[in-house]
Amino acid sequence: MIRAYDPADWPEVWAVLEPVFRAGETFPHDPAIGSDAARQAWVETAAATFVATDTNGAIVATYYLRPNQPCLGAHVANAGYVVAEAARGRGVGHALCRHSQEEALRRGFTAMQFNLVVATNAAGVAAWTSNGFRSIGRLPGAFRHPRLGEVDALVMFKTLA
Amino acid sequence: MIRAYDPADWPEVWAVLEPVFRAGETFPHDPAIGSDAARQAWVETAAATFVATDTNGAIVATYYLRPNQPCLGAHVANAGYVVAEAARGRGVGHALCRHSQEEALRRGFTAMQFNLVVATNAAGVAAWTSNGFRSIGRLPGAFRHPRLGEVDALVMFKTLA
Repeated sequence: MIRAYDPADWPEVWAVLEPVFRAGETFPHDPAIGSDAARQAWVETAAATFVATDTNGAIVATYYLRPNQPCLGAHVANAGYVVAEAARGRGVGHALCRHSQEEALRRGFTAMQFNLVVATNAAGVAAWTSNGFRSIGRLPGAFRHPRLGEVDALVMFKTLA
Repeated sequence: MIRAYDPADWPEVWAVLEPVFRAGETFPHDPAIGSDAARQAWVETAAATFVATDTNGAIVATYYLRPNQPCLGAHVANAGYVVAEAARGRGVGHALCRHSQEEALRRGFTAMQFNLVVATNAAGVAAWTSNGFRSIGRLPGAFRHPRLGEVDALVMFKTLA
């Protein structure tokens, strides 16, 4: 089940996000980021945040949606997705990505763009590709991976409407 | 002469920016943007802002510099440049671009990226290309041009160090 984020969800959402931010392998945020700054980035500066819950109602994944640019570029959405490690490999990320595209269309966005898809994040690249996104270009060394050093990042794009 | 922005410069900087933002052909900001929101975008959310002055000390151009992404992507700078219409065609944009690259290196950035170079902005694309930037990809219809409708935008990138 995917539903809109409620402020009371934050502790559970943070528990999903924290290990991913701490690992620093897929999002550019400071791996030492605190709960408040993470909420600022994931919820407060987003147009909308959603959560996916399991059959017990526990939050297992989350995504945000926002305009990628101001006014004259605001028809292109940006989104970010995190699935809790224990819930991976079950299609949750695909479900979030499909949901985000429908939600984006409903809100009047006509395209979606990911600005910094870490090239070493093979699962992410495969998931967005199978959802119809294509890499429009490669940014050389644009991401400082904690284990691998400077790695390339892809800009991925999909026209929705 | 290119020097650091001083808060007392704002009225002159806004006079340079305003016609460009109003035209809406090169920056994504709302063409109806007000002075306060423009200062927020050009000065307050930047790491640094610079101005170019003519021989009388009047401000004829300006640029901002900032990290393009948070922490793990913060080694890539982003910049934006505006030259007053009356000062165009005299190499001021090139001088700003060269200055911004030196300033970026001085501040520890190792690359520079432009996220939304409007493809119909031929003068801009030519200027950044001649400064060593290359288009790493094309975003279909990512900019709503007030006269031309949805036009493509380029992502341009240069490794500095």
